[in-house]
Amino acid sequence: MTGDKIAVDADLRASVEQFYAHHMQLLDAGRIEEWAAFFTEDGTFTVDSHPVPARGRQEIVAGASRTVEQLREQSIARRHWLGMSDLTPEDDGTTTVRSYALVFQITEADGPALRSSTICEDVLVRDGGSWLIRARLVRQDRAA
Amino acid sequence: MTGDKIAVDADLRASVEQFYAHHMQLLDAGRIEEWAAFFTEDGTFTVDSHPVPARGRQEIVAGASRTVEQLREQSIARRHWLGMSDLTPEDDGTTTVRSYALVFQITEADGPALRSSTICEDVLVRDGGSWLIRARLVRQDRAA
Amino acid sequence: MTGDKIAVDADLRASVEQFYAHHMQLLDAGRIEEWAAFFTEDGTFTVDSHPVPARGRQEIVAGASRTVEQLREQSIARRHWLGMSDLTPEDDGTTTVRSYALVFQITEADGPALRSSTICEDVLVRDGGSWLIRARLVRQDRAA
Repeated sequence: MTGDKIAVDADLRASVEQFYAHHMQLLDAGRIEEWAAFFTEDGTFTVDSHPVPARGRQEIVAGASRTVEQLREQSIARRHWLGMSDLTPEDDGTTTVRSYALVFQITEADGPALRSSTICEDVLVRDGGSWLIRARLVRQDRAA
Repeated sequence: MTGDKIAVDADLRASVEQFYAHHMQLLDAGRIEEWAAFFTEDGTFTVDSHPVPARGRQEIVAGASRTVEQLREQSIARRHWLGMSDLTPEDDGTTTVRSYALVFQITEADGPALRSSTICEDVLVRDGGSWLIRARLVRQDRAA
Repeated sequence: MTGDKIAVDADLRASVEQFYAHHMQLLDAGRIEEWAAFFTEDGTFTVDSHPVPARGRQEIVAGASRTVEQLREQSIARRHWLGMSDLTPEDDGTTTVRSYALVFQITEADGPALRSSTICEDVLVRDGGSWLIRARLVRQDRAA
């Protein structure tokens, strides 16, 4: 059956969604150390617009902290919405997740506005009842 | 482990998400009495822009009904999207939920448009297989 | 109790959400044959702006393929976000789902932008651990 190929366990799906909600809210609150703790020690964060991925928590913290600082200087608040997550449990116990992610931002001049639409591909590894990110790839959606 | 601290039960998460979907659709359909029935009798609804919270179902219905009437007079339809819900089960059996909420609105002049980005903090209490809101606080997202 | 009337099983909710994530990503990727395989053989797809519903996979594929072709000619990428899904298990084993759906589109000229806000009503039938669509009705949100 077509459907069986995409079926996932309810516990798996709930734990991944709870993970993303908590994780993204940390980012938007500028709590970068706590946010980065949800990457593995050797985790990678790749954005398609940058030539070199951030490798390991220290580099990931450094990069995200620069962004947070720039946003504060410009008085920009951001809200990351991650959704439409398509989960694939892999044989090695990891879960790959392909999600859509929208970034909304709030400025004094424009109020709330959609800033970008992206696809976020994660490799997640188990961490007790939740998950850590081993590898994240974020790609900007572009005109087809 | 980092992850264990944020893990939640699949039944909990599913029931909360189902609750919000049903609850918000009632609001957008203007079915205010049914929508307000998902607050506890003594529930509170606080919006950061108003000095005094609505207290109890009667006040909550009154306030929401005024808004519905105003929107109808201006031919405005609204769609509330609540998401990125971070759940915390509390020791007293309640669940606190911190979500993002976007309000989209549809007008003849502008079509569909993002109207506001907010953070919604709820204290939920069990009601059989679902939930009632004991306290809701909605805060507009502002420039950082 | 109010809440019991809307409660749904965690497995049900997880399977429906996984289904929609996978299904909508196929559409946005232009993989129309795979996308259409998640309708039943005799499934229907009705859009309120068109007088006649597409009936059966062949017609559904034909209609969606035309849209995909037009979008490619205009270099438009789309992202369908389906959410706020209110599920109702029916006595005959089907599940009816009333969701909000937003369509974002990305063009060279405008970048990412909200294109439409709709309500999507599906009748889903079991297909192993997942679902097939027997009937879909999509209605544009309009000024009230």
